[in-house]
This record gives sequence, structure tokens and C-alpha cells, in this order.
Amino acid sequence: MDFIIFVLLGAVLGLIFAAYQINSVLKEREEDEKIKSISRKIREGADAFLKRQYKGVSIFFLVMFVIFLALSFLGYVSIFLPFSFVIGGFLSGLTGFIGMKVATNANGRTTSAAKKSLNDALRVSFKSGSVIGIVVVSLGLLYIGLSYLVLSYYFKDLAETERIVKISTNIVTFGIGASSMALFARVGGGIFTKAADVGADLVGKVEAGIPEDDPRNPAVIADNVGDNVGDVAGMGADLYESYVGSIISSCALAVSAGLSIKGFALPLFVAVLGVLASIFSTFFVKVKEDASQKNLLKALRKGTYISGIIVALGSFFIVKEVLGMENIGIYFSILSGLLAGILIGYFTEFYTSDSYSPTRKLAETTKTGTGTLIIGGLSLGMISTAIPVVIVSISVLISFILSGGLKDFSLGLYGIAISAVGMLSTLGITLATDAYGPIADNAGGIAEMTNQDPEVRKRTDALDALGNTTAATGKGFAIGSAALTALAFIASYKDSIESIAKNGAFEFAFDLSILNPQVLIGLFIGAMVIFVFSSKTMDAVGRAASEIVVEVRRQFKEIPGLMEGKAEADYASCVDICTKSSQKELIPIGIIAILTPVIVGLVLGPNGVAGLLAGATITGFSVAILMSNAGGAWDNAKKYIESGVLGGKGSDCHKAAVVGDTVGDPFKDTTGPSINILIKLMSMVAIVFGSLFLHFSIF
Amino acid sequence: MDFIIFVLLGAVLGLIFAAYQINSVLKEREEDEKIKSISRKIREGADAFLKRQYKGVSIFFLVMFVIFLALSFLGYVSIFLPFSFVIGGFLSGLTGFIGMKVATNANGRTTSAAKKSLNDALRVSFKSGSVIGIVVVSLGLLYIGLSYLVLSYYFKDLAETERIVKISTNIVTFGIGASSMALFARVGGGIFTKAADVGADLVGKVEAGIPEDDPRNPAVIADNVGDNVGDVAGMGADLYESYVGSIISSCALAVSAGLSIKGFALPLFVAVLGVLASIFSTFFVKVKEDASQKNLLKALRKGTYISGIIVALGSFFIVKEVLGMENIGIYFSILSGLLAGILIGYFTEFYTSDSYSPTRKLAETTKTGTGTLIIGGLSLGMISTAIPVVIVSISVLISFILSGGLKDFSLGLYGIAISAVGMLSTLGITLATDAYGPIADNAGGIAEMTNQDPEVRKRTDALDALGNTTAATGKGFAIGSAALTALAFIASYKDSIESIAKNGAFEFAFDLSILNPQVLIGLFIGAMVIFVFSSKTMDAVGRAASEIVVEVRRQFKEIPGLMEGKAEADYASCVDICTKSSQKELIPIGIIAILTPVIVGLVLGPNGVAGLLAGATITGFSVAILMSNAGGAWDNAKKYIESGVLGGKGSDCHKAAVVGDTVGDPFKDTTGPSINILIKLMSMVAIVFGSLFLHFSIF
Repeated sequence: MDFIIFVLLGAVLGLIFAAYQINSVLKEREEDEKIKSISRKIREGADAFLKRQYKGVSIFFLVMFVIFLALSFLGYVSIFLPFSFVIGGFLSGLTGFIGMKVATNANGRTTSAAKKSLNDALRVSFKSGSVIGIVVVSLGLLYIGLSYLVLSYYFKDLAETERIVKISTNIVTFGIGASSMALFARVGGGIFTKAADVGADLVGKVEAGIPEDDPRNPAVIADNVGDNVGDVAGMGADLYESYVGSIISSCALAVSAGLSIKGFALPLFVAVLGVLASIFSTFFVKVKEDASQKNLLKALRKGTYISGIIVALGSFFIVKEVLGMENIGIYFSILSGLLAGILIGYFTEFYTSDSYSPTRKLAETTKTGTGTLIIGGLSLGMISTAIPVVIVSISVLISFILSGGLKDFSLGLYGIAISAVGMLSTLGITLATDAYGPIADNAGGIAEMTNQDPEVRKRTDALDALGNTTAATGKGFAIGSAALTALAFIASYKDSIESIAKNGAFEFAFDLSILNPQVLIGLFIGAMVIFVFSSKTMDAVGRAASEIVVEVRRQFKEIPGLMEGKAEADYASCVDICTKSSQKELIPIGIIAILTPVIVGLVLGPNGVAGLLAGATITGFSVAILMSNAGGAWDNAKKYIESGVLGGKGSDCHKAAVVGDTVGDPFKDTTGPSINILIKLMSMVAIVFGSLFLHFSIF
Repeated sequence: MDFIIFVLLGAVLGLIFAAYQINSVLKEREEDEKIKSISRKIREGADAFLKRQYKGVSIFFLVMFVIFLALSFLGYVSIFLPFSFVIGGFLSGLTGFIGMKVATNANGRTTSAAKKSLNDALRVSFKSGSVIGIVVVSLGLLYIGLSYLVLSYYFKDLAETERIVKISTNIVTFGIGASSMALFARVGGGIFTKAADVGADLVGKVEAGIPEDDPRNPAVIADNVGDNVGDVAGMGADLYESYVGSIISSCALAVSAGLSIKGFALPLFVAVLGVLASIFSTFFVKVKEDASQKNLLKALRKGTYISGIIVALGSFFIVKEVLGMENIGIYFSILSGLLAGILIGYFTEFYTSDSYSPTRKLAETTKTGTGTLIIGGLSLGMISTAIPVVIVSISVLISFILSGGLKDFSLGLYGIAISAVGMLSTLGITLATDAYGPIADNAGGIAEMTNQDPEVRKRTDALDALGNTTAATGKGFAIGSAALTALAFIASYKDSIESIAKNGAFEFAFDLSILNPQVLIGLFIGAMVIFVFSSKTMDAVGRAASEIVVEVRRQFKEIPGLMEGKAEADYASCVDICTKSSQKELIPIGIIAILTPVIVGLVLGPNGVAGLLAGATITGFSVAILMSNAGGAWDNAKKYIESGVLGGKGSDCHKAAVVGDTVGDPFKDTTGPSINILIKLMSMVAIVFGSLFLHFSIF
């Protein structure tokens, strides 16, 4: 049990570092009264959203808690489940909450810092981003560490192997709370931010002809709030869930892989190393004043590369110490995951950045109009799935074979699971380079709204533009790790059902052949559910945006003096509408995620559910990449044209590109990044309700 | 062997009926010299395309013939393969050729008939459509019947069961030629038609402001040629392949299902019944003059329903006679397939026709601009995948269980395969109601170009609009049957590999579990290849269309008097460009289809290929429906607005809808309907090259 000390130490160290960083951010000054006022409005809006979201979510969690409690009394689920469900949800929500608090306090300070220099602005925003990154991973480790302590105390009378089995089967179900919360935060935040963004643009930019971030636009505060609730709180909850998910899915496979407690400890050690490496490497992120876009990117990359190298080297010794040289192949699983993550990130950038040919060629298609731009963007997104699929395939193959899967199948599955841990090990720093983006974006908005010197806006714009690239990379990590983690969950699901069957003296043997009609139908439905989910989330953005359009039009008409800048807009009402509609739209989406595996399980049985999860994973992986990359490329094609090519701002090409960006918005910020959570949440639901499928399924 | 007499008799009867119909169409008069002239131009363009396509295709077939011949001398494939490959390709091409000859001779005659009455126009166009439908199914039966005769003569010295095994393993590989040809025809025709359509619209309608089908537009003939090469020749070759594929895949599974020669004969008997029913029911398709759109649809539906009822009743007695009451469950497999086809067709109509709310709501989204229309259309396409997936799932489950799959797995697979035969049994009449659409479309174009009375155009428009609905239904049939047939092919593939391994004394056992990394990676790649294929085909349309844009612009500039109607445009050059570019773009697409299974097989082995096929089938099914329905809905949303709602033609809503239609064009007429061929061609390649994977795969 000694290893858990290290885990808790790593977690506490991370939290101390985060507290130190928070303190240092708060010491920065929001010099200007106007900056303070706008920043406060954004903060209030974000708080209002979170308050309402947490209220809605509480009801959901309460209902599920009661259901789980009832099921646990009936003996279908573990007694820990109801509690771990609530705690998992709470912690996932907490990471989002902390992230948003930091971000909404850092935005005005970044604007103030940008008045001094680019490096100051980077320092403040990146420091805040690093808090989010480190809090996510530290709270993840803390959670696993404490759960382990509680469970091992509870099961202390069992023999070691049996104890580890009990701990790991219980610990894996903990993720369902985190996944549920992540879905609410990511989808809810995603709907909020894109409804505000699209709504503000449609009336403000297109109809009224006022610039972006103009304070006369009633939706402008909601737009800035959206960056925080979607790109910070939503992303934080999402990646918290990914991070914890990858670790616990490896832990859960340790026993069947014959590695027992050592295999359980390994992913945790690697994670601790990653936390330390992330903290260490944050100190290397800085630039000189007047740094170019390229140098900014270099500065951020330096941080991620340093921590990547540390993990790559350090985990060799960890594997050697923990599992011995006979299992050193598992080191290469970790390494392949780490490399796969970096490569997927690189190719995401290749397809979405206007420094490379795909996005530039996409911008050219605006010459023949909107239609060809839309076809071009979809086509770009589709072709961009090829390389990540090949990378993940090779990584799966290497992880499976080198970890020893050809001799021992379960060992190979463990290898695949731990490669996801390798991929996410440096999440602390990767997330830091991602989360500073929306802070810089907000800082730019505040600069605009407070009429700062154009130089200030230029500096925040430089940071913001880069943030688009790092955000795309972050999404690549999230979906790449999700594919690997989901596979591990399918394996855990199988283990869990088999163990339930054995303990209940059920006669059940899996037949997971793709020719088994149950599996086959599951696969079909799994692919389909990705499209239904995508359809619903995109529709939700559209509906919420049109409510904003109506409200903004109303204010322009009814508030006298607003357009002349003499009266203030009612910002709060737009925030309120976004908040309400994003929560309302969430309900059917949440129901799809939770009920699909339950219905499939009750009709088609455990085999059908395995097919469902596999079908959703393989289709979801490609669709998520398609959506993120197409959306990113449309956005950057627009920015590329705005930089002056093809006629620049206001040209016909630019008008077409604005439409492309509108289509891409829900692609890249609502639907695309939510798919990975959907896949994992369905896996969790399958694991948790597995015994019901055994007892009550029709086939 | 007696049963084959019935098959050949059915085929010959069908061909005689077709010849009678052709004769009766040719007896109609193209009254007007101008009609004759335009019709001839379209005919010449279509001939030019076919000539060039067949030239290109010949080279491909020659190369593959030599490769297959070499492989057969080396003992990796059957000696029949090279020949059946060529014959399959020839017949598939022949159906397209006959269809196109009929269509291009019927278009002017339909215009002339429309001068008399709506019923006359329907009579001529539907009669021509019925030729295409009946030729496809008759040539399909002829082909299988003759192949059976040749093979059973060759293997006459073997015992019955062994002879059937030999015949069926050989007969199934026959499909590869048909599939290859279908891919060329469908994708090549699809690129041609949409390049001409989009190119003509972009310069003609948008830039020069002249109406559709205006004779001054140099691309107008190419546009009309496109309807013939894409929607007639392409569709004919495609559905020929689907039809033959569904029958031979059931035949191939008969032996392993323990049904031997009787199981082999059953799908053929059902098919013969379907041909007779289709011929019979064509006589019921007629309308009164001044029939409404609704009555027209009713007239067409009457035909399909009558033949459906005949098959539903008749196949009960066939199953009872052939297999006896102990296997009557298989009748319900056939029935479930038949019903599933009708239901998928109905829901396709629901999602794409402007008589129902989805398309009407989509039209409403144009009020907030192009962006929301695009998101709305994609969202509609995505949600429309749900019901077809559920229908196919239920059909698979019913077919499997009722045919006896729970007791005997192979019997269940046979049940799934024969449900596809049930679905396609009435193809003769379904295809007739589909193929008359492009003829009516052409007739309308000719009416426009020859300045006929507006009443004439109104009549052809009524027929054409209905054709959009029946075309969508036809696509639903093609993809629905493809899903079932592809599953049967995966089963055949497994049988075939196992038999090769046994005969070669190889040690090989399939592990098709979705947790086997080979299968898993295959699944990932299968999903991805659908997106890569889609990307490539959509890009191809875009590139070909922009060549047309350049050429049309050139002619407007360089031909004096063209815009004033004093000089004639150089129609042939546009036809030539479309022809050339469609063939050029085909090459990489064909390579993807053929090389993907080979590479996956050589790297991941037979298990990986099975995963690839399953992944491509499950993702491809949803993506094909998404694309066909989104494209159909965009098209009809535009037509709905043109009918006068939301401001009608020329309004901002209409402009947005035109963009939506441009995006939808390659969706519904190039990419969407090609996906089913891609899936089946990959399955065929896998079956044919199976022994190479056994011998040479890395893993």
C-alpha cells in the first residue's frame, strides 16, 4: 500500500503548486476601473451559469443516486456506486469550477498585463492556464488515491489478489459520475458558448453592422462568458474525466493481466511522474517582448516537449522498478501512447492551421462561393481522419504486442490501456497551453470593450490566435486517449460481466464475434448513435442561437439610445437565455447517452452492448476528428482571409468564409469534443448496469 | 438441376418483355425536328462518355485479368475467376449501356408525348424505365443461370454436396467484376453529372443570370447527358450488382447452412417470382389526364405494392415446396427483408419530401441564412439514420432467429442473406419507378431548349419532381440491401478462408472477437475508409466542376453572338471535359477500394480484413443514408421555396437554398450512392484475395 503515499504526495504537491500560482495571479492588478467592471460582469455571468447548471445537475445526480442506492440494496450494483457516483461528479464539477474561477479572475488581469508587454500578458494568462492543468491532474490523483485507501480499508480482510480485484472493479465504476458531469459541462458549456457566439454574430455583425466585442451588442458579455463555461469549465471537466478514466481503466485490467498490485500501481506512478514533469516544465514557458507568432508557439512547445522527454525517460525506470525487466515491453506501450498523442496533435495542427496547405487551399475554395467552401471543409475533415486512425492503429498494435499480448491476451489489453495513460501523462502542461487560450480571448474582448490602445488588442490577439492551434491539439489528445480508454473499458466491461456471472453462478459466455447478430446489431446501433447525438447537439446550438437572435433584436428596438452608445444593454438577460436554453437542450442528449446502452443491453444482452460500445468508439473517433478539424480549418480559413489574402475583410471570399465558420462553430466546440465523453459515458453505464443485462435481457 | 430451367426461362421471358417494351417505345414519334436535334446531341454526348469510359475500364479489366490469370496459375485463385471477372464486368456494363440507350432514345419521345397529355408522357417514360428495371433483373438471372450450367458441367464428376460447394464458392467471386464495373459507372457517372450540373449552375445561373436548361449555356447538354450517365447507366450497373450480389451471397451460404442444392435454388426461385411479379405489375401504372402529384405517386406505388404482395404471398409456397414446412421460418426472413425495404423507402421519403415536416422545417432555417441551413441539413441527415438502422437491426434479428439461427448459426446467416433477396425481389418494378425520373428530367430539359408550350414543361416537371422522391426511395433500397448483402459476404469470406486453410492443410482459426486487436484495428480502418472515400469523391466533383466553370466562361467570352442566341455553343467540349475529368478522378478512388482490403489483409491477416469489412459496413450504412437524405432534403427544400413559400424564387431564402442544393448534389448523387458499392467491392476483393492473406500476412 506504500505506493499510494507517492500518489497522494504527488497530488498534494500539485495542489500546493496550483495554490501558489493562483495567489500569484491574484497579486496581479486589474489597473483600470473599466476593466474591473467588464471583468466583473463576465464573472457574474459565469457564476450565474454555473449556479444554474449545478442546480440542474444536482437534481439529476440526486435521482441517479436514489436509483443506484435502490439497485445496490437489490444487489445489482456495489454499495459504493451511489457514493462514488456523487463524488466523481462533484470532483469533475469542481475542476471545472476552479478553472472557471481562475479564468474569470485572470482575463481582466491579462488585459492589464498586455498594456505593459506581450511577455507579461503571456505570463499572466499562461500561469492561469497552468493552474487549470495542474488542478485537473492533481485532483485526479487525489481522488484515485483516496478511493484506494477507503476501499482497501473496507476490504482489508481479503487476501491480496482478491482485495485488488474488489478495489479495481469498484474503482472503475467511479468514473460514471465524472463522465456524467463531463457530459453536462462539455455539452452544456458548448451549447452556451456557441449559441452566444453565433447569436451575437448574426445580429451584431451581420444585421447591425457593429464590430465583434462591441459593448453595444447585448450578447457580447454572454459571448465572453461562453468562452469560460465552454472552453474552460467544460474542457476541464472533460479532461479530468479522460485523465481519471485512462488511469482507472488500466488499474482495472491489472489483475486479469496477472500483474496484480504492481500493475495497479504502475499507471499511478507514471501519472505522478507526469504531474511533476508538468510542474517543472511550466517554468520554461516565456517569451521576449515582440516575439513572433512562431516564437510564441515555440515557447509553449518547449514546455510540452520537456515534460514529454522527462516522462519518456523516467517511465522506463518506473516500469523496470515496478514490473522488472521481464515486463519492460510495457514501457514501450507507454512510450507509443506518448508519441501517438504528440503525432495526433501535430497532424491536427497540420490540417487546421493556416500555416499549412490544407487550410490555405480551403480558403481558396471561397472563390467559387459558399457551397464549394462547405464541401471543401467537410472533405478536409473527412480526409483528416486517415492519419490519426493509422497512428492509433499502430499504437494499439505496438502496445498490444510489445506488452506481451501475443502470449497473454489480457496483458496485451493492459498494454493498450496503459498507452492511454502515457498519452495523457503530460496533461498538466498540455492543458495549460490549451486553457490559456480562452483567457487571452477574453482579455482581447475586454480590451475592445474598454477601448484600450490598439497595441493591447494586438498582443492579446497574438495569444488568442495561437490558442486556436493549441485548442485543436488539445482536442486531438482528448479523442485519441478516449479511443484507447474506451477499448480498455470494453475489456473491463467484459471482465466485470464475467465475474458477475461467475459469482452469481450464471451460465454466460461472451461471444463477441462480429458475425454474432447481437454484436453486429450493436455495432450498427453504435455507429448510428454517434450521428443521432451529433444531430441533437448541433440542433440544440441552432435553437439556442435563434433565441439569442430574437432577444438581441428586441433590445436594439426597445432600449432607447443603445445603438448610439448612450444606454447600456441588458447583458444579463442574454446570459440568462443562454444558460436556460443550454440546460433545457441537455436533457434529451443526456437521456440518449444513458438510455442507449441500457435499452440495447436489455434487448440484445451483454454481447449487444459490447458491439454498441465498439461501434460507437470506431465511428465516434472518426466523426470527432472530422468535426474538430473541419471546424478548426473553417475558422482559420476565415482568419487567413482576414489577414489580407483573397480580398481580406469584407470581400465576397470573406463573406463565404464567415458562413463556413458559423457551420464550423458547433462542429468544433460543441459536437466534436463531446463525442469522446459520450463514448466513455456509455461504456461506464454498460459496466454499471451490466448485471441487469445478465438478468433481464430478452436475448 | 431442373430448377435452373425456371431461372433461365424467367430471364428469357424478362428479356422478351423488355424487347417488346423497347420496340413499343421506339414506335413513339419524336415529332419535332428541334426535339430530334437536341435529343441527338444528348445521345451523342452520352455515347461519347460511354465510349471513353469503356476504353478506360477495358484497360483496368485487362490488367486485372492478367493479374488474376497469373494468380490462378500460381494456385491462389480459381481458374474461373479471371473469366467470371470479365464477364461480370461486361454484363454490369451492358445493363448500364442498354438502360442509357433506352433513356436517351426516350427523352425526346417523352417531350413529344407530353405535348399530348400527362398520361402519354408518363406512359412513354415509365415504359422506358420499366425496360431498365426488367433488363437488370433478367440479365442478373441469366448470368447466374448460365454460370451455374457451366460450373456444374465442369464439376459434374463430383458428388452433389461437393459439387454445390465448388459451384457456390466459384459463383460468389463472380461479383467482383460486376462490383468493379458498378463502381466505375456509379462514381464516374456521379462525378460527370454533378460536375456538369454544378458547373452549369455556377456560371449560367449565378454569373450570367440565364435560366436552367437555357440552350445558350455551353454546359447544358453535358448536364442532360449527366442525368443519363449518372442516374441511368450508373444506377443500372449499381443495382445490377446489388441484385446479383444478394442472390449469390445467399447461394454461397446454402451449403454451410445444411440446405445444399435446395438452399441454393431458393433465392433463385424467389427472384424469378419477383421478375414475373414486376412484369405483371407494370400494367397497372397509369393515370388520368390532369392527375395531381399525389395521384401520380399513387399510380407508381400501385405497381410496387402489387408486385410486393405477389412476392409476399408466392414465396410462402416456394419456401414450403422447396425446403418444406420444417424450414418455413426462412419465409419470414424473406418477408422481413421485403417489409424492411418498403419501410426504409417510406422513411426516406418522409425525411426528404417537402410534403413532410423535416424538409419543410429545413426550408425555414434559410431565414437565418446559409449557415443554419447547412447545419440543419447535416443534422437532418444524421437523425435520419436512426430509423433505417433500427429497421435493418430488427430485420437482421428476425431473419436470423426465425430461420433457425439460434439452433444452427449458419442457418441464421443464410436467413440474413436471403432477407436481402426478399428486399430486392421486386427490383424490376422499383427500378422502373426510379429510372423513369431522369428520362422525365431530360424531357423537361428538351422542352425548355426547344421552346415548347409552358404546359409541356409543366407536365414533365410534374413527372420529374416525383422522380426525386422515387430516386430517394431507390437509394434507400440500394443501401439497405447492401448492408444485408455485405454481412452475407463477410460470412462467405470466412467460409472461403476456412475452406482454403483446410484444403491447404493450413493451421488457421478465425478469432473475430471485437477485442482481438486485428479485428479492432480493422474496424477502425473500415470506418475511416468510408470517410476517406467520401472525401475523395466529393473533391473530385469540386475539381471537375471548376474545369467546367473555366470552359463555360471561356466560351461566353470567345464565341461571338453566343449570349444573344445567334451562335451555337460548343456543347461537345463540355461533354468532353466532364468525360475526361470524371475518368481521371476515378483512378485514385478505385485504388482505395481495391488496395485497402489487400493492404489490411497483408498486414493484419484474415481477422483484420473481417474487421475492416464490418467497420466499413456499419459506418458506411449510416453515412450513405446521411448523405442521400441530407442531399435530397436540401434539393427539395429549394424546390419547396421555389413553389412560392418563404419569398419564392429570387428571395434571400432561395439564394441560401441554392447553396444548400450545391452542397447536397455530390452528397446525394455521387458519394452517398457509391458507398454501398465500395463496401461490396471491398468484400469481393477480400474473398478473392483471401488465400494471399493466409499465406503472406505479417500478423
